[in-house]
Amino acid sequence: MAGNTFGTLFKVTTFGESHGGTVGCVIDGCPAGITLNEEMIQIDLDRRRPGQSDITTPRKEEDIVHIESGVFEGKTTGTPLCLVVQNKDAHSSDYDHLKNIFRPSHADYTYQKKYGIRDTRGGGRASARETVARVAAGSVARIYLNTITGIEIVAFVERVQNIVGNIDIHTVSIKDVDKTPVRCPDGVAAEQMISLIKKTGEEGDSLGGVIRCILRNVPVGLGEPVFDRLSAKLGQAMLSIPATKGFEIGSGFSGTYLTGRTHNDEFYTDKNGNIRTHTNNSGGVQGGISNGEIIDFRVAFKPTSTIRKEQKTVTTDGKETLLNAHGRHDPCVLPRAVPIVEAMAALTIMDYYLLQKIYG
Amino acid sequence: MAGNTFGTLFKVTTFGESHGGTVGCVIDGCPAGITLNEEMIQIDLDRRRPGQSDITTPRKEEDIVHIESGVFEGKTTGTPLCLVVQNKDAHSSDYDHLKNIFRPSHADYTYQKKYGIRDTRGGGRASARETVARVAAGSVARIYLNTITGIEIVAFVERVQNIVGNIDIHTVSIKDVDKTPVRCPDGVAAEQMISLIKKTGEEGDSLGGVIRCILRNVPVGLGEPVFDRLSAKLGQAMLSIPATKGFEIGSGFSGTYLTGRTHNDEFYTDKNGNIRTHTNNSGGVQGGISNGEIIDFRVAFKPTSTIRKEQKTVTTDGKETLLNAHGRHDPCVLPRAVPIVEAMAALTIMDYYLLQKIYG
Amino acid sequence: MAGNTFGTLFKVTTFGESHGGTVGCVIDGCPAGITLNEEMIQIDLDRRRPGQSDITTPRKEEDIVHIESGVFEGKTTGTPLCLVVQNKDAHSSDYDHLKNIFRPSHADYTYQKKYGIRDTRGGGRASARETVARVAAGSVARIYLNTITGIEIVAFVERVQNIVGNIDIHTVSIKDVDKTPVRCPDGVAAEQMISLIKKTGEEGDSLGGVIRCILRNVPVGLGEPVFDRLSAKLGQAMLSIPATKGFEIGSGFSGTYLTGRTHNDEFYTDKNGNIRTHTNNSGGVQGGISNGEIIDFRVAFKPTSTIRKEQKTVTTDGKETLLNAHGRHDPCVLPRAVPIVEAMAALTIMDYYLLQKIYG
Amino acid sequence: MAGNTFGTLFKVTTFGESHGGTVGCVIDGCPAGITLNEEMIQIDLDRRRPGQSDITTPRKEEDIVHIESGVFEGKTTGTPLCLVVQNKDAHSSDYDHLKNIFRPSHADYTYQKKYGIRDTRGGGRASARETVARVAAGSVARIYLNTITGIEIVAFVERVQNIVGNIDIHTVSIKDVDKTPVRCPDGVAAEQMISLIKKTGEEGDSLGGVIRCILRNVPVGLGEPVFDRLSAKLGQAMLSIPATKGFEIGSGFSGTYLTGRTHNDEFYTDKNGNIRTHTNNSGGVQGGISNGEIIDFRVAFKPTSTIRKEQKTVTTDGKETLLNAHGRHDPCVLPRAVPIVEAMAALTIMDYYLLQKIYG
Repeated sequence: MAGNTFGTLFKVTTFGESHGGTVGCVIDGCPAGITLNEEMIQIDLDRRRPGQSDITTPRKEEDIVHIESGVFEGKTTGTPLCLVVQNKDAHSSDYDHLKNIFRPSHADYTYQKKYGIRDTRGGGRASARETVARVAAGSVARIYLNTITGIEIVAFVERVQNIVGNIDIHTVSIKDVDKTPVRCPDGVAAEQMISLIKKTGEEGDSLGGVIRCILRNVPVGLGEPVFDRLSAKLGQAMLSIPATKGFEIGSGFSGTYLTGRTHNDEFYTDKNGNIRTHTNNSGGVQGGISNGEIIDFRVAFKPTSTIRKEQKTVTTDGKETLLNAHGRHDPCVLPRAVPIVEAMAALTIMDYYLLQKIYG
Repeated sequence: MAGNTFGTLFKVTTFGESHGGTVGCVIDGCPAGITLNEEMIQIDLDRRRPGQSDITTPRKEEDIVHIESGVFEGKTTGTPLCLVVQNKDAHSSDYDHLKNIFRPSHADYTYQKKYGIRDTRGGGRASARETVARVAAGSVARIYLNTITGIEIVAFVERVQNIVGNIDIHTVSIKDVDKTPVRCPDGVAAEQMISLIKKTGEEGDSLGGVIRCILRNVPVGLGEPVFDRLSAKLGQAMLSIPATKGFEIGSGFSGTYLTGRTHNDEFYTDKNGNIRTHTNNSGGVQGGISNGEIIDFRVAFKPTSTIRKEQKTVTTDGKETLLNAHGRHDPCVLPRAVPIVEAMAALTIMDYYLLQKIYG
Repeated sequence: MAGNTFGTLFKVTTFGESHGGTVGCVIDGCPAGITLNEEMIQIDLDRRRPGQSDITTPRKEEDIVHIESGVFEGKTTGTPLCLVVQNKDAHSSDYDHLKNIFRPSHADYTYQKKYGIRDTRGGGRASARETVARVAAGSVARIYLNTITGIEIVAFVERVQNIVGNIDIHTVSIKDVDKTPVRCPDGVAAEQMISLIKKTGEEGDSLGGVIRCILRNVPVGLGEPVFDRLSAKLGQAMLSIPATKGFEIGSGFSGTYLTGRTHNDEFYTDKNGNIRTHTNNSGGVQGGISNGEIIDFRVAFKPTSTIRKEQKTVTTDGKETLLNAHGRHDPCVLPRAVPIVEAMAALTIMDYYLLQKIYG
Repeated sequence: MAGNTFGTLFKVTTFGESHGGTVGCVIDGCPAGITLNEEMIQIDLDRRRPGQSDITTPRKEEDIVHIESGVFEGKTTGTPLCLVVQNKDAHSSDYDHLKNIFRPSHADYTYQKKYGIRDTRGGGRASARETVARVAAGSVARIYLNTITGIEIVAFVERVQNIVGNIDIHTVSIKDVDKTPVRCPDGVAAEQMISLIKKTGEEGDSLGGVIRCILRNVPVGLGEPVFDRLSAKLGQAMLSIPATKGFEIGSGFSGTYLTGRTHNDEFYTDKNGNIRTHTNNSGGVQGGISNGEIIDFRVAFKPTSTIRKEQKTVTTDGKETLLNAHGRHDPCVLPRAVPIVEAMAALTIMDYYLLQKIYG
């Protein structure tokens, strides 16, 4: 109810604030007998970690994961997994000057009004640090999917402001994506993105853009009509990530300019006898259920709210003031958001995959 | 789990197929003591009803709602409401020629593969007829919200293909929206839309577009971080509507072209002492919680999948064939989708409103 | 949340009041492809029906079930089943004299205080008539379990007041149970029970007792520790039936008089190589999980609250008064509660059975 | 789904094995602004702690709780609370001899069969050590209830085997209960119980009994018909505690020997104008909803499964063998189960109390 749980069969509950002792999650419903250790999860966390390149925040957070429960002799036991990451490089004093100010386009004001209290250190629960727990949980889901299925999940930065990468979604791999620090697998566009991010960061301003995510080899039949359509739950999953403002699947908003004749995905039977579609405007989901084509969606991320330019705002008692923020922030969150998008995709698919074991 | 329930406190479960006996819903969690009768719900159903104008399907469905339970002497009792609508003008024989064919971009193929069986009459459960139940349930939510709060929910057609209406979101009312059959309150654009829809329908083709939805007077504090952000649940709600391909809130995808400096919504204190923002790129939601500004989102609808043009497809046993569909369909679903968008918005807000009574 | 849903995978939501138009349920999550028709469900409803013998209420309720949705050409489609039963022999005027009175040990007072309003006709939602919907839903679960598994569910009246039947739980069948109208398969005890019930009914008084329920051939592994232990959910299921005051499994309360040495169920390996226990004080559940032995539990039913003896009570505005109830009620609810106990057992097991398909 | 979460509004998810790193819980949905610190929770944990007297296990577990998240400057923030307790005095080697043996009436066999794997150290997840997390969570619920309401929750040992205490439920306090290590507030019975427990423990055998729990000052209106009756959820809560075999409320099983005339609780209006009942056979719950009288229920605990007497059993590969257990166990779990019963009662009531804030 209070919103910190995702999933129904593979049920992830996250906890922890930016500057509290730990951030972490409990996963209830992970099947037993899966090989799992901390090194396996650490791979994904290292992709999300701050300080990994010169276009991300210089904050040094090692983000070492520890499995507290649910694993015995290297295998999951079917009981709850608790994964925790200690908060280490937490400069709480960086936030003292923000204690009585509502930062524009942050959650300071809404948390204060909703709860009557807020943890003022580094955004508290509203900090993107909370996504550490999502990446850890998503990693477990991915390990399961890798072990049991052939499903592949690859996200990448497709656009930063107006610089667009051109990527082949049939072949793109995580290795391709991780070749550049901006996580755009189109090398030319990546260079331009990196330059733009550096320049904008130096100016104290910030950038947004679009992450595209590709799921290959998803079996036909995942998704639960009518309210829990696969597309709808992917939408919720993505729009629950901090800084997101939009989601589209397949043809998305641009498909609204077509007519039915050009938009419809005509069926054919391939040489293996599988029913396929010539086009994929549906983005791999029809009637809320996966159809075996590539699942293909995009997520819009706004420009980072924390900037070093002077802004007008108000104090917690409503007096108008000027904010000159400092602190250590990403001028563009997209590169580090790529593993978060993948994690939320993995959690969403995992739940439907397990559910389909009943009915499939 | 199986996806036919929406909401946790105001919990709506829908049932019924296009050509079965009834479609309907059970609402569990409606507060007691609210004045409710069938006439009140009928108003919203009549806005969704087929056959209401010459740009919608000529199917005649009267869609008369009946309250089966949960009301005593004109008031809700706190026990489950069951609302049903009989299926009347169901020409099941219209669908006989489709029994062994998978219609492109419909749910025929995915339902068949997921369940191993499907109701072949008129799309069965995947038919948009299922949304009758959503509109009925949304109507109850709206009646509650109207009775207890000042929240206003208004959706309208903002764009059909490339024809865009220009609407003042501070003042637009349902009355304005319903002035034209296309439900675009910009009269000039509406005329163009109507012409285009008629022409396209005559050609046997179909159109998509964008519905925008406005929620005014939503109190600060609705929404549950982190996974159940108000924006995320609105996204799920909208993407659960048939034919939707995208959702964006506030600045949405276009906001990704801005920098943080222009995108951030600076705070000020208004003359009543309320903390407000100068701009509303956030779309009324910050950190997943309503901030008191207008909630403003858009939903992308693809062109109707049913067209009267010849299409390539396959039979249920995988043989390639040609489909020449007839039947009675809307060349553009947007006008009739307006009350569905409003209904899903009402259901979403209702749940958070009730929840906030605990914690607020 | 509001309590009218049972189950998570096989999710049953009931609706309807004693004297409203219909009582019924929606089942979301029934697997597709199961043969189902109204005659199959009617069998169980006829066992619950009033007026079936001279020791039950003379009210004539035919309770004919109708399947509104979710079945196509005689098979379930995986979409929601809606089952409804019309209310026919509803003498609402029988209750006019009770409109302003709180009947002792009924739900009149608590409903009025909780909701501020109550349906005064025949107990409204608190009436045992609501269990019609449970029996219909349980019937679907039983049909699935019969089709797919060898699980057998048999409940019977073990005790009425101080008359105890002696029944072999390894062999007792529904057919045995239904041989006498009191549903106690021990013929001698049954005769005594029937006499006592008639005599007590003639005196205007009422009786309670114990129903015992046996589940045979339940596979090892059903139940979810720690909060959703099979024993705990069976407990909730049974204690949700009107008029219940207690639940015990295996040795139950009497096992508390033993020591560990006599209470522990020692293991052995049978000739088929299966691990079994010599005794079954556990009642077929260990650590909350079924162990393959007979699941064996008992439910305590209080004496019917409606009696024809004069009782002291208060009016709705708190004035003391005398109640002389008439109306048509069972002097002992146990015979008709037998199929309700079986239905709730079937619903409970169904949910765990489906869940174990994922993890097993 | 997988059973490690209790509650819907005040939602508690527990994790941790007997001999893993930590046991703990995440509480999602705790209202903001409540004063909370570790000392407050420690009080309840100390009542559950092993080694507190000479009739409980000599294992020394300090069970120091740590709040990982959700508290800022001494108050809850409305975000998830994570409470953890380190496992300290874990003699895993004590369990090496049990690795390949199924202990009678334990969960070894069922866990192994359900999951295909089990943590063999000290019962793993099935160990009663898991209840540490329940007591911690229940403590938070109790602190809230104490702060906001006048609800009092007191449990006590009413019976050990055949020794029954006689206690005034209108006045009994936790202080009274904690006067003796056996937690029976009847001093004479307590002495007899202590003697019996010591003697039985010395013999290597074990005892069961009954805990009674009293809730005073619960407002009218808590509980959600029909499936989530307050009595049904209390039943689930109690039957989810390890070693429980039965639950009864009010008159319970003994009430089945009465007739309606003597069993019905007649209403009257007290001098304050409140509607009350003369008797309380209902145990404070009517129609599943609290009626303002004392809520009064009993829980049956079987004799501890771990005994030091030789027992027949089988190895994990089905060979028959003899078990001579050692280890450090309570010969009677009831004294330490008292705070667990109270914790589960607090969690149950908390959920309904919050829910009633919406509808009340």
